[in-house]
Amino acid sequence: MAVGMKAIPPLGVISGVRVGTLAAGIRKADRRDLVIMECAPGTTAAAVFTQSHFAAAPVRVARAHLAQTSPRALIINTGYANAATGEVGLADARACCEAVARDMGCAPEEVLPFSTGVIGERLPVQTILAAIPKVRAQAQADGWLDAAYGIMTTDTVPKAARMEVVLGARRAALVGIAKGSGMIHPNMATMLSFIASDVAASKEVLQEALSRAVRTTFNAISVDGDTSTNDAVVLLATGHSEFRIEGVDTPEFAQFLAALEGLCADLAFAIVRDGEGATKFVRIEVSGGRTDEEAALVANTIGQSPLVKTALFAGDPNWGRILMAVGRAPIDLADPNRVVVCLNGTRVFKEGMVDPEYREEVGQKALASTEITIGVDLGQGPGTAILHTCDLSYDYVRINGSYRT
Amino acid sequence: MAVGMKAIPPLGVISGVRVGTLAAGIRKADRRDLVIMECAPGTTAAAVFTQSHFAAAPVRVARAHLAQTSPRALIINTGYANAATGEVGLADARACCEAVARDMGCAPEEVLPFSTGVIGERLPVQTILAAIPKVRAQAQADGWLDAAYGIMTTDTVPKAARMEVVLGARRAALVGIAKGSGMIHPNMATMLSFIASDVAASKEVLQEALSRAVRTTFNAISVDGDTSTNDAVVLLATGHSEFRIEGVDTPEFAQFLAALEGLCADLAFAIVRDGEGATKFVRIEVSGGRTDEEAALVANTIGQSPLVKTALFAGDPNWGRILMAVGRAPIDLADPNRVVVCLNGTRVFKEGMVDPEYREEVGQKALASTEITIGVDLGQGPGTAILHTCDLSYDYVRINGSYRT
Repeated sequence: MAVGMKAIPPLGVISGVRVGTLAAGIRKADRRDLVIMECAPGTTAAAVFTQSHFAAAPVRVARAHLAQTSPRALIINTGYANAATGEVGLADARACCEAVARDMGCAPEEVLPFSTGVIGERLPVQTILAAIPKVRAQAQADGWLDAAYGIMTTDTVPKAARMEVVLGARRAALVGIAKGSGMIHPNMATMLSFIASDVAASKEVLQEALSRAVRTTFNAISVDGDTSTNDAVVLLATGHSEFRIEGVDTPEFAQFLAALEGLCADLAFAIVRDGEGATKFVRIEVSGGRTDEEAALVANTIGQSPLVKTALFAGDPNWGRILMAVGRAPIDLADPNRVVVCLNGTRVFKEGMVDPEYREEVGQKALASTEITIGVDLGQGPGTAILHTCDLSYDYVRINGSYRT
Repeated sequence: MAVGMKAIPPLGVISGVRVGTLAAGIRKADRRDLVIMECAPGTTAAAVFTQSHFAAAPVRVARAHLAQTSPRALIINTGYANAATGEVGLADARACCEAVARDMGCAPEEVLPFSTGVIGERLPVQTILAAIPKVRAQAQADGWLDAAYGIMTTDTVPKAARMEVVLGARRAALVGIAKGSGMIHPNMATMLSFIASDVAASKEVLQEALSRAVRTTFNAISVDGDTSTNDAVVLLATGHSEFRIEGVDTPEFAQFLAALEGLCADLAFAIVRDGEGATKFVRIEVSGGRTDEEAALVANTIGQSPLVKTALFAGDPNWGRILMAVGRAPIDLADPNRVVVCLNGTRVFKEGMVDPEYREEVGQKALASTEITIGVDLGQGPGTAILHTCDLSYDYVRINGSYRT
């Protein structure tokens, strides 16, 4: 069902990182469900996590470990989210880290755990512990594409991307994989993404780059307005290239950030394009807010409206529903007559009514496309926001009405 | 598709009110689409309107007329919402009022216009003007049930109710009709309701009663989180009975309010039970908020979650999704471990994990019912909120993916 996906380029390798994938039988037989990423000593890392009140056990453990030291390995399972599992869930996540650490000869704090899947059920720890030597045995430098398959849940296609960073004679590379299809919304969703680079950078520099890149990519997408307990984006830097980033005010940082943003955009938009049941890729551009936050509130209200999203699915240029959504957005709208609405660049609404030059055929043509841009100018100030989302189809209901049972 | 609807009782009459309904061919042939309600001189009225930034032309005209004088007639059309129609839309709404006023021999300000239907297209004013003498000719005291049909759009069943008010030897009655099925959410939705009583009460007393009754009924329902440009609830009082309400601190007011709340609850919950594609009626009870507002934010987040609503459709006791929704609610949650979640009274989650005594079969049985109560205790304070909603089914997508085109 994925709509307009980019082909995955050859992913190659990131010097200092080895990736292994295994069908460990965690919840279903014959399904790749366990991934290990091992990184060389000296690797630095940054991460962005879910803001849910019920952050899953692996998120809480990963956050704590990352605060203490740099990682040597990431262990990622699908099938069970290990969320809403109380103290026993924390112990289970720690047990996975300890087993990896024993096998690798590192400290448990140097292992970060990640889980995605059903909420509220215990992780089958014994199954995972038994599989750890086997998944480590699979680890190889060019294991990225397998790992992209290994972290999928309701995803219909794997998501992976590669970017090169070049500055003069110095070169570096970034490779990333991601999973996510439902429970997608700003502030992190049921989404995991793991990115590695061979640049050399401190934890602080990496964190700044990742936080900036996430703002306009992973935090600017919505499938269904729901956000999960397990989301995480991790950025690893092995330092194995000549490309050293000394601080945030350097040309190296700017170059790296541009590549990282490009990579995150590819991965994040691939999540929306593979959104549960998606048949359209929709870009909502809001301008004219008093602030960026105000514009974002309007973009989110439009992007969460089931009536807008079903109209998009139907290919119906029912701009009245867009207006309805703007009308209920939680902002002060001093003068509704200043609001302008566009569909794929054609103005449909201005000065309180349909644009006299608008023709229904033009709207129908815009909505027949699988790539739709909804533009809204609030006419109140300089604030802007962009949100990427998809439509709401029968298949969304089918997938989520039968996911677990 | 309506789920667990109450049968409509005999509606009888309200002395001083006559109701007429006509298939005027406003948007579709052979469909009842125009309703007139005429009320005796001396009738008082109160109303609650949409809070949309884009309140429709009829809402703006009705609001202005109601501020000037008491109504002698309400004219209600389906087919076109006369919303997002600019100055010409206001002129169209006023033209309808003027035509009714001419025919009745009253002032245009004594006529209130209401419209529901497609947003952004002009009202076919000539068709309506031509139909006004005909719809007036249909007006009769026992025309309520016909009118309940006459205001339907995507509704699959009419909504109407009657309540008696008795205090000692004094008796009065209330009859109400409502329409609404999609775009339903607190703060008024694509919903119209017209209620009449033969009590005698000032405009101020009526407004206080209506505002209080709406809070726990029409403003405590959600179908899809979307709210419209045209919502209105109107309460008329003809004063034709002996039942006089002198003020809000009287036994008469208390008795009348109880009956009005009962009537509004019947109508509002009928809207949810007939929610677009609804197969389950869901009551979300949130307690333990620091304030009622905090509890309402959590109830709304749960009630708007597509993942919760598709799980309800599937009959899947996937309480993890409820927790996910609580986890993303925009509140401060000091201690997530104090949160308790119940399904139809059975505790499923406490102290950060599944209740050890919970059995999946119990949850499955609860979710197999068409009447489901989700209980959440936040454990933070005395604040409570209740929201009534329905599930999200294939039919919601079908109805809204094909409504207009």
